[in-house]
Amino acid sequence: MFRTILKITSEREGDIIDITGNVKEAVLHSPIRTGLVNLFVLHSTAALTMIEYEPGVLADLRRSLSRIAPEDLPYAHDTKWGDGNGRSHVKAALVGPSLTIPLEKGDLLCGTWQQIVLLELDVNAGRERTIVCTVTGE
Amino acid sequence: MFRTILKITSEREGDIIDITGNVKEAVLHSPIRTGLVNLFVLHSTAALTMIEYEPGVLADLRRSLSRIAPEDLPYAHDTKWGDGNGRSHVKAALVGPSLTIPLEKGDLLCGTWQQIVLLELDVNAGRERTIVCTVTGE
Amino acid sequence: MFRTILKITSEREGDIIDITGNVKEAVLHSPIRTGLVNLFVLHSTAALTMIEYEPGVLADLRRSLSRIAPEDLPYAHDTKWGDGNGRSHVKAALVGPSLTIPLEKGDLLCGTWQQIVLLELDVNAGRERTIVCTVTGE
Repeated sequence: MFRTILKITSEREGDIIDITGNVKEAVLHSPIRTGLVNLFVLHSTAALTMIEYEPGVLADLRRSLSRIAPEDLPYAHDTKWGDGNGRSHVKAALVGPSLTIPLEKGDLLCGTWQQIVLLELDVNAGRERTIVCTVTGE
Repeated sequence: MFRTILKITSEREGDIIDITGNVKEAVLHSPIRTGLVNLFVLHSTAALTMIEYEPGVLADLRRSLSRIAPEDLPYAHDTKWGDGNGRSHVKAALVGPSLTIPLEKGDLLCGTWQQIVLLELDVNAGRERTIVCTVTGE
Repeated sequence: MFRTILKITSEREGDIIDITGNVKEAVLHSPIRTGLVNLFVLHSTAALTMIEYEPGVLADLRRSLSRIAPEDLPYAHDTKWGDGNGRSHVKAALVGPSLTIPLEKGDLLCGTWQQIVLLELDVNAGRERTIVCTVTGE
């Protein structure tokens, strides 16, 4: 088993950051050649998924997330705490904090159009986000 | 590898149950100190995710799930089987049955506001739900 | 660790294909009896989840996915690339490409109504989809 920590800084709500390069580099430092790479983001208002990293489709994803948790509705979380990030928590819980990707011959085994992305969902911008990267295998 | 079974009883549709303590206790019984904890719920009308365990945001999550699968629409599953839980199946398939969390020094490695929750999505209440907890590592 | 590749051919957008049998057969060829089965689909317009394989509930799931990413809206991805599959990418990113299921005594440990399904989300039909199946354990 090999574990490393990735630190990614976001700028604003809605940032979708391509971390494929960061994960590939982390995996290069691991002695494991075949197995699985687990990624886990340590925050309740961020999430991990995979998508083609093309600006149009990223905008489309943001819009669909807003359909699930619209900006213009009141949130019980905000009423109580005044954080203003009720929608951020909801989106994060639905997309989820973890992702597991196959590793083959020391590289990620995924499709050409599958990039790993960190979703910054919080309204409070400019955060450093921590992602735990765990490689298991042989 | 270490495996244990968690049994959680829900009361009604929409219950969001904090099982972080149950998972931490299960992990304490495992000899594994560093690795990954996989959770898997053995039911098609329940799901697992992580969220801040604050009543407001839990209500917000319920409302967003109802936006994806509204209560006041007819479901083909219900028309055929009369179970009334068409929406429950849909929500469960979208949130998903499994979750993988890093383990470090014998404890869960996750954010302060990330609690592990079981979503009871079925309209037929008062069910015992089974969650398989698998710890892998060293 | 044991790894095998599943090839599944879809016919049209919205196909939900039960691959439980394929995964069970793959697992039979593995010497591992207890552990975890990770599935990962190598495409950005397909996804994996679990659901009761009943035609009504599959139709209900399709309808809920269309609520998140409606067919009758313009997509920025389509405007730029003319692929027409903006909605497919969005749905795939939200459902996710991977799934981890417990293995016990050489068989999948999951509920009676939990079938493993491949969601064909692309508007360009008749595709062969590749799923990486990785079994870890003892």
